[in-house]
This record gives sequence, structure tokens and C-alpha cells, in this order.
Amino acid sequence: MRIAIDAMGGDKAPREIVKGAVQAVKESEDSGEIVLVGDENVIREYIPSDPPLGDRLHVVHSSQIVEMNESPVEAVRKKPDCSIMKAASLAADGKVGAIISAGNTGAFVAACHMKLRRLPGLHRPGIAVVIPTYDQPCVICDAGSNISCKPRHLHQYAIMAGIYAEQVLGIENPRVGLLSVGQEDLKGNILVKASNEYIRKDKSINFIGNIEGRDIFQRVADVIVTDGFVGNVVLKLIEGVGEGVLLAIARDLRKENSELAAPVNAFLSKLARRHDYREYGGAPLLGLNGVCIVCHGSSDALAIRNSVRVAQSVLSHHVNDRIVQRLEQTGNGKNGKD
Amino acid sequence: MRIAIDAMGGDKAPREIVKGAVQAVKESEDSGEIVLVGDENVIREYIPSDPPLGDRLHVVHSSQIVEMNESPVEAVRKKPDCSIMKAASLAADGKVGAIISAGNTGAFVAACHMKLRRLPGLHRPGIAVVIPTYDQPCVICDAGSNISCKPRHLHQYAIMAGIYAEQVLGIENPRVGLLSVGQEDLKGNILVKASNEYIRKDKSINFIGNIEGRDIFQRVADVIVTDGFVGNVVLKLIEGVGEGVLLAIARDLRKENSELAAPVNAFLSKLARRHDYREYGGAPLLGLNGVCIVCHGSSDALAIRNSVRVAQSVLSHHVNDRIVQRLEQTGNGKNGKD
Repeated sequence: MRIAIDAMGGDKAPREIVKGAVQAVKESEDSGEIVLVGDENVIREYIPSDPPLGDRLHVVHSSQIVEMNESPVEAVRKKPDCSIMKAASLAADGKVGAIISAGNTGAFVAACHMKLRRLPGLHRPGIAVVIPTYDQPCVICDAGSNISCKPRHLHQYAIMAGIYAEQVLGIENPRVGLLSVGQEDLKGNILVKASNEYIRKDKSINFIGNIEGRDIFQRVADVIVTDGFVGNVVLKLIEGVGEGVLLAIARDLRKENSELAAPVNAFLSKLARRHDYREYGGAPLLGLNGVCIVCHGSSDALAIRNSVRVAQSVLSHHVNDRIVQRLEQTGNGKNGKD
Repeated sequence: MRIAIDAMGGDKAPREIVKGAVQAVKESEDSGEIVLVGDENVIREYIPSDPPLGDRLHVVHSSQIVEMNESPVEAVRKKPDCSIMKAASLAADGKVGAIISAGNTGAFVAACHMKLRRLPGLHRPGIAVVIPTYDQPCVICDAGSNISCKPRHLHQYAIMAGIYAEQVLGIENPRVGLLSVGQEDLKGNILVKASNEYIRKDKSINFIGNIEGRDIFQRVADVIVTDGFVGNVVLKLIEGVGEGVLLAIARDLRKENSELAAPVNAFLSKLARRHDYREYGGAPLLGLNGVCIVCHGSSDALAIRNSVRVAQSVLSHHVNDRIVQRLEQTGNGKNGKD
């Protein structure tokens, strides 16, 4: 099992990326090999020489870097030798089984689209992100790769994210909810109303119907299906509210009960760590003929190490084969075009 | 100043609604009169006889009630003598200056639409909800009355919610942000991209461009413009995350540090109360030729009392006159049709 990591992508690249890759290799003898893609000279600076990891940690040189604020499609076109494109090429050529990047998400998604084909019958890939609710995690798809969705896209997100939840998170017969503004089937915008009908017809899905914003943290559903615009707003909002609540507690506690401040803050830091997105590593871009893991831009070594685990789990559970099989069974178009 | 309150609407009606109305009347001599609309016999049971409030608290009888789960438009058509329609009629006939309901939101919005006309030049009304972030509140519009928006609707939400933030919340020259998936103008779905261009052209708006989900709690903007679908998901999610975080803290603390549990929970209850939606009362449905305040279904006496304050503030600051004036200045169509 070989996994390529874009060493140049993310706010903390290359130091933390390389560090995470080294940890992943050291940690387990059977975790396969890792290929770091990027500026070879820079990457080598961060690889410790002792113990030697030469046979399990490789470097593939690339001369260009996509910056975080570059226009995605333009960037991958103008920079064919960027680390993102090079990693995607390694996957397309079968030299690695999975690729990971914490760089410009749009550029990574675009490169994966360009280099790897869609799975047969698949209309549009979607990003499946694990939300660390305070009970058991749940998965939201799409988290931002497909801003303009159609009902058939949401239907396939229900299928793909369901398989991911079952195989990788170990949730048996996951409950799938469609994010809307009310629980009744008739509530929602045009996309949601049509998608509800579409998904309900597919008896292979454990569809519980529409769910509302507040249900996400009530653990009503294991899989939350939504379009990439809403999914992205939701994810960033959760991050923001969580931070906001913890900051407010810390601040008000200092003012009103300074004796409690120290022990409570220590406790809250631990709580925040336990529900830290980094513990879940990256999020798979599902639906492509390859395993692509999208990481948060602020990923550190821990996040990268855990992303390697996610990639390994997606590979070892044959998530893509299962998706193709399910699409065939449910009679989804063999040649999805859109 | 006379304000009508739907006494039959909400999970805690009529007891808490009447209680809130009585508190509002008792509290201030110059707060005008309140008209409770609903089943007269039931309402009178909850009105204390001492001190007599007869000249400032009135009851208008209505024989029908819209249930929380009824289809909104059907309900107001089939039940012309329901408390919601009767309250809206009082406003349409000029007998009250504002109406308040914690009942079926869809039915209340439908009744207000039917009985009160749109302000001249206004395309679609929108609900402006105050979000109690942990610093200073901000306003989001639309919160769910208009699920299928057009750019000109979002433009007018920017205008109306801006005036509301300025006049009622006292925020000078409020910063208006458009909720999207990235800060760049080109990020977003078709609606957001077109709306960004539309709003940017209006120099009377202090437009800061696109904002992301995480920015809502960073207080980057005072006014957040979005369509009713996303706005509704966002509001319910904030409620859910806030509750989820506090519950998780309480639960984990009991397990891990039981000594801290009691004082911390007392502190957190106080914190939660301070950021309680009830403190902000109801949310105005802006854009109609009348003042309509939508309350949370779980509103209690405190929420109702504060909703009366919101209604009074909207009236005394001539929010509707200011909206009409601004629409005229910015050359918005005199006869908005959609």
C-alpha cells in the first residue's frame, strides 16, 4: 500500500506535513510506504536521518507550488508540475493507491478530477467530512466540492457517504438524513424536495427523511446529505460556534470566577482536543477512480498522520469497489455524465 | 401604541403568552396597550384581576386555532377566524400598530402576506433574526420566510436588515456580509455570485463582501445576508451546537471532575441565559406594510415581554418608513412584484 502526500500544501507545509508522514511510517511496520511530493531539497531537510526510513519513505520532486489563494482551475492548468498535479498523476499511473493534500482544496479537487476518472455510473464526486459531535461522529456530504447540485448528485452522496460511514466508521446500516428547513417531506427548496423523492425511492438506503440544522448535533442521522454550498457553510459554522462558545466560557470565567478558571480551562482544552477535527484526519473526495483525501488547510503532523489512517482504511475496506457495486445494483446510469 | 398578540400560538400558549403580555403592560406605564387575540374565555382565566389592567389590556375573541404542524397556507385559508388571521386583520384595519405570534411560523407569515401589503418597491419580505454571538449581537436575514431567493431579494434584505441593525440594535453604519463558501467575490453558488454584484453596486450599503460560516461568530459582519433555506439551517444549527457543547461539558465534567461539576454548571446556566434567544424576543418579518414579530415556538413569558419591546422599538424608530425611503433613494422598483 503506497500513499502519496502533497508535502507543499497547507498553512504548516512542509514541516508539519513531513513530520506527520514520518510519524505514520515509524508508527506501524505494516502501514506501507509513503511518497512525499514537492520540492525535494526542502523536504529532505525535514526528514530525520536516524532511524533510516529510506525504503518506506520516498520523495518525488515537483518544481511548482499552488498557493492557497490561487484560482483552482487556473492554477492546475498553469502549473502542470505542481505538487498537487504530480501527486494526482502518481495515482492515475497506479504508482500510489491514495493521495493526500492539505493545500488549496479547489485545486486538489480539480487535479483529482483531471487526472483520475469518475467511477462508472457516478455523476459528481463529493467530499465526505466527519463531524465530531459530542456523542458519536456523523458524516456530511457534500462538504463543498459541488456547489450546484442536482437531485441525482444528492442521491449518490447518500449512497457513497453511507458506504463510507459503514465501512470506515463502523456504523451499521447508517441512518441517512437530508438537510432541510423542516422534517416534513414537502419542506425545503426545489433541490431538496426533488432529492427527497429521489432518495426515498432507493430502498437500499436507510433514509430517515429530512432533518433540520439542530438535528445534526442530536445525532438523529449518521449521514447528512446536502449540497456543497450548504455543507460548506455548515462545517465552517460548526467550527466557528464551537470556538466561540469555548472562548466565551474562558473569558467570562476569568471575570466572574477566577478560581475556577484554571481547572476549567484545562478541562475544556482536553474536551476540545477530543473533538478536534485533526483526530479525524482528512475527508475523502468520494466518487473518483482513486482515493483522494482532502485535509484542512491548518493541518499539522497529527492531522496528516490520521489522514494516512483514513486513506488506509478507505483502501482496505474497498470503499470504491463497494460504491461501484451499489451503483450497479441500484440501476444508476452506467455512464454518469453530470 | 397598540400591539396585538396571538394568545393561542406557541408550545406554551396561552398561559405564558398571556403572562408575558401582562408583564409588559405592568412594567411600563407608557408602553401603550396590548390586545390579546384568541379564545376569550380561556385567555381571561390567565389575566389577574388585581391590579386591574382593563384599560390597557384588551381581549379580542377568535374561534379557531392553527396547530403547529398544519400546512400554513391551507390553515389560514380554512380557518379565517383563527387567532393569527384575526391579529393580522387588526393590523390591516389600523386597529393595532404591530402583531406578535409564537404560533405556526409559516401560517403567521402567510397571514401577514395576505392581510398586509408589501411596502412599495419591496419584492419579498424577510425575517431578520438577532444572533446572540458572544460579543455583540448580529442580524441574519432571511431566516426562513423566502426559501427560493433571487439576487434582488437578497439586495433588499441587505437594506432592510441594515436599517433594523442600525435603528433597533443601535449599530452605526452596520457592516453587511453575504454568506458564502469563500471570501472572494467569485466564490459561491449562482445566487450568491449574482447577489454579490447586485449588492456591491448599491453604495448606500456598507458591504464587506462574502463571509464564511466561521465568520458569523467572529463578528466580522453586523448583518448577514442569505437565502431563507440557508438562513434557517444556520439558525437551527447554532441552537443545536450551543446546546450540544454545553451538554457535553456538563456530562464530561461529571465523569472526570465531579468537584468542579456543580460550580461550573451553575456558571454555564448563567452564561446560557445571557445568550438566550428569549432575551432578544421575536424577529421582525421585514418588508410588509405593518410590524409583524415572529417568535420562537417555545417562547415563554420572558420572550413575549421582550417581543413587545422589539415591536415598540421597530415602531418608534419608524423602521418601515426608513425602508421605503431607502428603496426610493436607491431606485428600487416602485412596484416590486416578486
